[in-house]
Amino acid sequence: MTTSSPSLEPSIAPHLLRASRTPKHEPGSYLPAYPAFSARFGEDVTSLVMAYFGVQARDTDSPVLAESSAHVRAQFAETDGPASWDRAAYVDAEGFTTVISIAYWSDPDAFDRWYDVKGVSWTDAARVTDGVGHFLELVRPSVERFETVFSAADRDEGLAGAKSGLSGMIEEHAYWGSMRDRLPLSQTDPLYPSGSPRLVTDGPVRTVVLHENACLIRSGQDITDTGDVERRAYLGDVEPSLRAGMEFLRDEGGEIGCYDNRYMRILDEEDQPTDRTFGLSWWRDISALEDWAASHPTHVEIFGVAMRHLSSFGPETRLRLYHEVTVPAATEQRFVYAGCHDATGLLRAVL
Amino acid sequence: MTTSSPSLEPSIAPHLLRASRTPKHEPGSYLPAYPAFSARFGEDVTSLVMAYFGVQARDTDSPVLAESSAHVRAQFAETDGPASWDRAAYVDAEGFTTVISIAYWSDPDAFDRWYDVKGVSWTDAARVTDGVGHFLELVRPSVERFETVFSAADRDEGLAGAKSGLSGMIEEHAYWGSMRDRLPLSQTDPLYPSGSPRLVTDGPVRTVVLHENACLIRSGQDITDTGDVERRAYLGDVEPSLRAGMEFLRDEGGEIGCYDNRYMRILDEEDQPTDRTFGLSWWRDISALEDWAASHPTHVEIFGVAMRHLSSFGPETRLRLYHEVTVPAATEQRFVYAGCHDATGLLRAVL
Repeated sequence: MTTSSPSLEPSIAPHLLRASRTPKHEPGSYLPAYPAFSARFGEDVTSLVMAYFGVQARDTDSPVLAESSAHVRAQFAETDGPASWDRAAYVDAEGFTTVISIAYWSDPDAFDRWYDVKGVSWTDAARVTDGVGHFLELVRPSVERFETVFSAADRDEGLAGAKSGLSGMIEEHAYWGSMRDRLPLSQTDPLYPSGSPRLVTDGPVRTVVLHENACLIRSGQDITDTGDVERRAYLGDVEPSLRAGMEFLRDEGGEIGCYDNRYMRILDEEDQPTDRTFGLSWWRDISALEDWAASHPTHVEIFGVAMRHLSSFGPETRLRLYHEVTVPAATEQRFVYAGCHDATGLLRAVL
Repeated sequence: MTTSSPSLEPSIAPHLLRASRTPKHEPGSYLPAYPAFSARFGEDVTSLVMAYFGVQARDTDSPVLAESSAHVRAQFAETDGPASWDRAAYVDAEGFTTVISIAYWSDPDAFDRWYDVKGVSWTDAARVTDGVGHFLELVRPSVERFETVFSAADRDEGLAGAKSGLSGMIEEHAYWGSMRDRLPLSQTDPLYPSGSPRLVTDGPVRTVVLHENACLIRSGQDITDTGDVERRAYLGDVEPSLRAGMEFLRDEGGEIGCYDNRYMRILDEEDQPTDRTFGLSWWRDISALEDWAASHPTHVEIFGVAMRHLSSFGPETRLRLYHEVTVPAATEQRFVYAGCHDATGLLRAVL
């Protein structure tokens, strides 16, 4: 515990550090068990845009899935399109196949220009047909309201595609509470939620706006580079527990403050499934997420098998892990559902 | 997460609450999964005394063990003796049988008067004989520097014997970080350690003084009232993992900031073993303890089996749990070893 660790740096970027900051470990005194890194953005970046363009279809063979996905891909390539984007798919609890194209902008003005011309029609009421829905889940957090952590420095996932660089090895990870400690706003704010989710209905288009300080996590794993032994261990020992936890959150998460959870698989350039998956969930607040992670039997199980996996493979592991966590202000998010069934995304928080 | 819980109160006593306090959960918004309570002391109590009077013998049949224990029991009954005390035993890693009489005073002046007359001879150099040692581990924390948590309100353990009362159900438990949140000083101080342990040798008497903000935990379990089924489950599933973790800390804890650990069994009035045990360990700082509890494989295992036990028995569990955690200032502790072997207690921090 007394090892000096001059090569570590705070997860929070220098221009966002506050004098009041008191990390759990005295800076320079802590050496985490394994390295981790955070995405960096230029000082001129004041907020990000995270836009989830989803299409759902009762019929897994519906041509709309591919048509809409191809359409939004083409729009992304236009002027003022996103700095990065990826795509993932899953089948929801109602049996609807869902494809979400997730795009990140580090220039909100560019997003606004793009959206007004290329994006706004995504959830147009005129597109609504039976058994098919489109949605846009939009989050525009200030840079004080999100944090990232990556176990490997050489591959971008999620919003890291829009980053300007990566930190060195960070101090704030591998201990409980580190997620909160990485969030710049936690230096000055306890991040309590306030208010209630609101629903606005306009024909077939329903819009949800959450309250202050809700919490989004995208938490992923990548087994692309694992060898046969590690892959078998992951798929046999780790993944079933992860899946059970993801399904608990999806089906029963409401009891513990989880509004919605999607366990998704990333698609490649040809929309084929990859070895990269992630959970995407919305929570009442960061405390509800912390509490699930710390003490709910489903996550205690996930944590136990993951720890055994990592300690078994040690530095030879090729399992890559990352997450991004966002605590938006009430004014920084909205969720628009056009023709979607009632258990879609954040509609579950209000219906 | 939105359940109103007006019957909860802060673990920190009202007169110790600071305006700067920002608990992880917004007060009134959080309902822990199970109840817990903290010891209360009068506003006139400014510090406690915790005194560990230990005797060790290479020969488990050494008459000194019983003689010394009977002697200190008699002294405790004298004027200005402790508000409460108990006794526990274990065999240490060197094979020495050790009996510790643990006494608590809520009036440090009373302790000083008692100690000068009745206590000081415990570690007298004149008592030292081959294969037998005596020690006094003395901690005098201010009331801002300790916290307690009890799963049941109807039985005192440890320092609770010296308390004036018990809180109602507290908010700050059942989540990671709650130990720190219960410590009054954590409201205003990050509790970083500083300095190094010091050793002073005076013939056969060796004194250790730790640095600022070391951390002591006494963490106990009581299966006295369990039925046959729960007792079997505890002894078969929980206790072996607990024992393995205790032995790891004892034998290899130094690597992760644990100076010493004793896994002890409480003795009854006739010095016979009971169904009550506890771990007693000293740490470099509270962060080292938090990190072990959060992520070390030995504690991940303990936590997993304990969670399974508690969720399996639910409200019918008769397993009682408690702990007391102290973060003394450098001036609030000293550890005196007379004739003890080199791996005794805090000598391990300096030898």
